[in-house]
Amino acid sequence: MNQSWTQRQRPERLERRIEFTDYQDTRNFLDKLNTLSQNRERFPDISFGRTYVNLTLHVKDNMSSLDSLDHDFAQQIDDLL
Amino acid sequence: MNQSWTQRQRPERLERRIEFTDYQDTRNFLDKLNTLSQNRERFPDISFGRTYVNLTLHVKDNMSSLDSLDHDFAQQIDDLL
Repeated sequence: MNQSWTQRQRPERLERRIEFTDYQDTRNFLDKLNTLSQNRERFPDISFGRTYVNLTLHVKDNMSSLDSLDHDFAQQIDDLL
Repeated sequence: MNQSWTQRQRPERLERRIEFTDYQDTRNFLDKLNTLSQNRERFPDISFGRTYVNLTLHVKDNMSSLDSLDHDFAQQIDDLL
């Protein structure tokens, strides 16, 4: 998992902000993330504008804390870049 | 403009939250909004998860307050539903 992810508490989660040069780059990333989310049935909270995306990975519904699967998913998101 | 938009101050903006029944409905709406945003060259701040979308329309770069164009854009977004 890339260092640019930040692990926060209360609630435990992973956060990352990614900046893009233009809206098309932002869209290309979001489209790839959409495919990954559907394949993994994992849907991060995403906020975006024209040239940025903020991602938040919450603990999975049936879990009480983050685990290696979450860190793997974060790595897979990094690999989209 | 549909009543479900809320006008807030400091900074002046329009906000709306839309709930969807499943991820596919959320994606369909976001794809239509993407087309509208590109056509209008207006890019709201968007945050979404599996079954919700939060929209924030900020005052346009060269303006100091919201105007009828912003309210029209909000109405066009409502029309996508």
